[in-house]
Amino acid sequence: MNKPDKTYSKAPWRAKLYEVIYEADTPMGKLFDIVLLIVIVFSIILVMLESIAHLNAKYYEEFYIAEWAITIFFSVEYILRIITIHKPKKYIFSFYGIVDFLSTIPSYIAYFAGGNNMWLAIRALRLLRVFRILKVTRYIGESNRLIGALKNSRAKIIVFLYAVIIICIIMGTVMYLVEGPEHGYTSIPLSIYWCIVTLTTVGFGDIHPVTPLGQFIASFIMIIGYGVIAVPTGIVSAEISKSDRNTVHTNTQVCPVCHESTHTDHAGFCHNCGNKLNEK
Amino acid sequence: MNKPDKTYSKAPWRAKLYEVIYEADTPMGKLFDIVLLIVIVFSIILVMLESIAHLNAKYYEEFYIAEWAITIFFSVEYILRIITIHKPKKYIFSFYGIVDFLSTIPSYIAYFAGGNNMWLAIRALRLLRVFRILKVTRYIGESNRLIGALKNSRAKIIVFLYAVIIICIIMGTVMYLVEGPEHGYTSIPLSIYWCIVTLTTVGFGDIHPVTPLGQFIASFIMIIGYGVIAVPTGIVSAEISKSDRNTVHTNTQVCPVCHESTHTDHAGFCHNCGNKLNEK
Amino acid sequence: MNKPDKTYSKAPWRAKLYEVIYEADTPMGKLFDIVLLIVIVFSIILVMLESIAHLNAKYYEEFYIAEWAITIFFSVEYILRIITIHKPKKYIFSFYGIVDFLSTIPSYIAYFAGGNNMWLAIRALRLLRVFRILKVTRYIGESNRLIGALKNSRAKIIVFLYAVIIICIIMGTVMYLVEGPEHGYTSIPLSIYWCIVTLTTVGFGDIHPVTPLGQFIASFIMIIGYGVIAVPTGIVSAEISKSDRNTVHTNTQVCPVCHESTHTDHAGFCHNCGNKLNEK
Amino acid sequence: MNKPDKTYSKAPWRAKLYEVIYEADTPMGKLFDIVLLIVIVFSIILVMLESIAHLNAKYYEEFYIAEWAITIFFSVEYILRIITIHKPKKYIFSFYGIVDFLSTIPSYIAYFAGGNNMWLAIRALRLLRVFRILKVTRYIGESNRLIGALKNSRAKIIVFLYAVIIICIIMGTVMYLVEGPEHGYTSIPLSIYWCIVTLTTVGFGDIHPVTPLGQFIASFIMIIGYGVIAVPTGIVSAEISKSDRNTVHTNTQVCPVCHESTHTDHAGFCHNCGNKLNEK
Repeated sequence: MNKPDKTYSKAPWRAKLYEVIYEADTPMGKLFDIVLLIVIVFSIILVMLESIAHLNAKYYEEFYIAEWAITIFFSVEYILRIITIHKPKKYIFSFYGIVDFLSTIPSYIAYFAGGNNMWLAIRALRLLRVFRILKVTRYIGESNRLIGALKNSRAKIIVFLYAVIIICIIMGTVMYLVEGPEHGYTSIPLSIYWCIVTLTTVGFGDIHPVTPLGQFIASFIMIIGYGVIAVPTGIVSAEISKSDRNTVHTNTQVCPVCHESTHTDHAGFCHNCGNKLNEK
Repeated sequence: MNKPDKTYSKAPWRAKLYEVIYEADTPMGKLFDIVLLIVIVFSIILVMLESIAHLNAKYYEEFYIAEWAITIFFSVEYILRIITIHKPKKYIFSFYGIVDFLSTIPSYIAYFAGGNNMWLAIRALRLLRVFRILKVTRYIGESNRLIGALKNSRAKIIVFLYAVIIICIIMGTVMYLVEGPEHGYTSIPLSIYWCIVTLTTVGFGDIHPVTPLGQFIASFIMIIGYGVIAVPTGIVSAEISKSDRNTVHTNTQVCPVCHESTHTDHAGFCHNCGNKLNEK
Repeated sequence: MNKPDKTYSKAPWRAKLYEVIYEADTPMGKLFDIVLLIVIVFSIILVMLESIAHLNAKYYEEFYIAEWAITIFFSVEYILRIITIHKPKKYIFSFYGIVDFLSTIPSYIAYFAGGNNMWLAIRALRLLRVFRILKVTRYIGESNRLIGALKNSRAKIIVFLYAVIIICIIMGTVMYLVEGPEHGYTSIPLSIYWCIVTLTTVGFGDIHPVTPLGQFIASFIMIIGYGVIAVPTGIVSAEISKSDRNTVHTNTQVCPVCHESTHTDHAGFCHNCGNKLNEK
Repeated sequence: MNKPDKTYSKAPWRAKLYEVIYEADTPMGKLFDIVLLIVIVFSIILVMLESIAHLNAKYYEEFYIAEWAITIFFSVEYILRIITIHKPKKYIFSFYGIVDFLSTIPSYIAYFAGGNNMWLAIRALRLLRVFRILKVTRYIGESNRLIGALKNSRAKIIVFLYAVIIICIIMGTVMYLVEGPEHGYTSIPLSIYWCIVTLTTVGFGDIHPVTPLGQFIASFIMIIGYGVIAVPTGIVSAEISKSDRNTVHTNTQVCPVCHESTHTDHAGFCHNCGNKLNEK
């Protein structure tokens, strides 16, 4: 996040507003974030309720007014964000800048061009705005560690997903041949879709094997899927276990006499030779 | 659990009763707990059987009598608990106090106010009473360790659940747009519900994608769900592994000078005060 | 397995037969085991095929003859096992003795008393006989380790299953109240069954929530089930990890000079003081 | 992969072509691999699209031409591979040789003998050709480690799968007896199939228990399946964790005398020859 420039001196209200909008360590900044969070959550709920036909028919007017109130609120906020920041261009083309823009624009387009659902549903992206606010919570550390564990096992996960997709393409083709269009497997892509549904143990049941051979092969796919789920789990499990282990080594002191370096966190003396350790 | 006060001397039968009802280390106390356990399990089975229409029609009278027998038994027990305990108020508003109360009250309300199912089903809460009795079993240690492992990974699990919900809201909205009301995705909340059904690999099949694009996106959601399940597993797995490791106590030395006890496995000197540790 | 007594001297053919039937380290014993394995697998397949109506109608005679051939073979084997063993009673009432008996008796009962499916299907228990033969394979070690890991985590698993059942009973009751008989949740036990189907992420779809509130609660149950699966996995994972770690310590040598004991498997000298280790 | 013989001197174009076709470290070789990869992926997509009835009806001619273009490209490539390699026989009967052959032959057979779907779908095997090309990517190391982890836990996984199959056969037979043909469990093999569907938590819902006893047993199977999935996960998890640990190389010391390099973390002397190790 860009720190405010010292050269705000010309317009001190901009520096003030910047602090309120972009930061969260002043009471006003915190209040702003909480209000924003409530409005975002409220707007998401509104988008959902609008999609329910009988509610939309009944409360059309209320929804319309609320939607415009939120749109105007977000528009004002967006403009203020551009005005107060030092490098507006960088903000406008940043991830959150685009999300903020997409949060307001659909309503205007729907108003001028005649809205269809497609445009209005983009408003669901407002949800992403929540992340900016949550950035300041204490969970950010944990989420970074989880993302770190996933990133470290990225290569393994890609290999695994690649294997899953290959299995699904091959077994899907086999099922297409075995069951055929007369049992619902109308094309190879559909059979592959079915195979993914089965391998991932979802099992909708919209399509299912009917012939004994098809059921035998399906059993085979299911047992593979049941066993193969162990692989990503094992990968992430080992990775988190490792990252947990690594963070335990918080004491980096080395004994000045015997160079022993594996001391417990609150050690004051070397456990190997008994000499005093240096102050941390 | 509150220990009985020494001042029960005025009414020794209260102290005696307290011991029977609240404790389990005397033969009578144990017997009471076993009887209570049986009555609770019996009452739960009764509530279940009552809900089966044709059984309720056939054995209405038997169920009615059994229900009142249990209600009176629980009422007497509840009153005795209040009488014998030193601080009745604390008990009444404690978790188990409320559960005990809710175990008896629905029958009375149903009797006086004309019962509907809603009230009677609250009796299923009687099940929670089982926990108090099981408290004394040898499994309490294990369950504490499991709860401990879950508590330690709470932050990670909240982050994970938050990510799952965000994914479901976004993908649910996308599916609503792609499939639309004509294929069963009648509203965004319903699409989100479907997305949760799919991501968690439950897959009821009441709603399922019909268009090729919808099936493609569904495949994507399923594979995410299939891979993402690795994350909570990895978290808990690493946590349990750690808690197991910690309880292994490979070095049981205690420093003879400062009584520090957390030494590394090959420590010869106390890391806290520098004195020599005793030979193993 | 009982070792043959030295007192078989009176009937050397019994000792010989014992060796063939009960042991697998002579060529004849091995051959016997392989033949038996084939007959067992063949008989299982036969039981399965008989259950397929149109095959049974077509090949009734062939199945009948094959079934009697197998029954007589197993009967002879059973009698020989009793004759050759030193303590027949102990065998007869052992687990495998009972399984052997149940493998032959259904055909006789069906013949004399007029068979129904129930009796004939008991023959599927013949499958258990396979275990005796597999006892000699190299997989027995691994299976013992897996069973060991499961046994060690027994207490944790019981606590976990108990929690799952409690959750299912409570949430099942709630769903019964929310959805009610008109949406398929006709009784509390059925709702509990549905809850187990959902929590374990099986999701048949024969019953599924229809009301928005029911779908919301169902989502909640699914996410619990999705997260909770991490617990048994974590338990077993940590247990296997531990058992693997423990078996790594194959070198139990202790240095005669400095008493250091954590040597690598092929160590000849102490890594701590450089003195020669004792021969293994 | 066979390295080119020095005796290509007679036909230098063969050595050149060999380099382009079989290797990937020259610009031309890399280009060839990328072109091949694109053609393979394109041909797979073509096979899929052909299987969609309405697309095939509409673009029959385009598909026909594209298919023959690919077939001829693969045929030429196959012939060039045979010509340029030093030991053609070894290639022809190698895994990739057979895959390459099966990638081209179905089109010819379909042309001469009148094609049916069965033959044409073999072309989906072209997918396997992708592996040869991906061999050179950086993911090969990770995939080898994953395969290694799976290989190491092979014995455990076989024991596990054997147990799953035994459970499914026994519980499938039980369900056949309990539910019977009138509720869809028309034969024992079908019941076993249902049991696999349930135990692996797939749950299509095409067959599902209707009687209370059947639902009770099904609940039991589901909870087993839910718990048992922990076993393969635990196995692979522990294995990956171990393989990660082994590659961490915490002690990188090499003995200056005997070049032994597997020392424990705090070793001061070589455990193999007893000489002092260099200071870290």
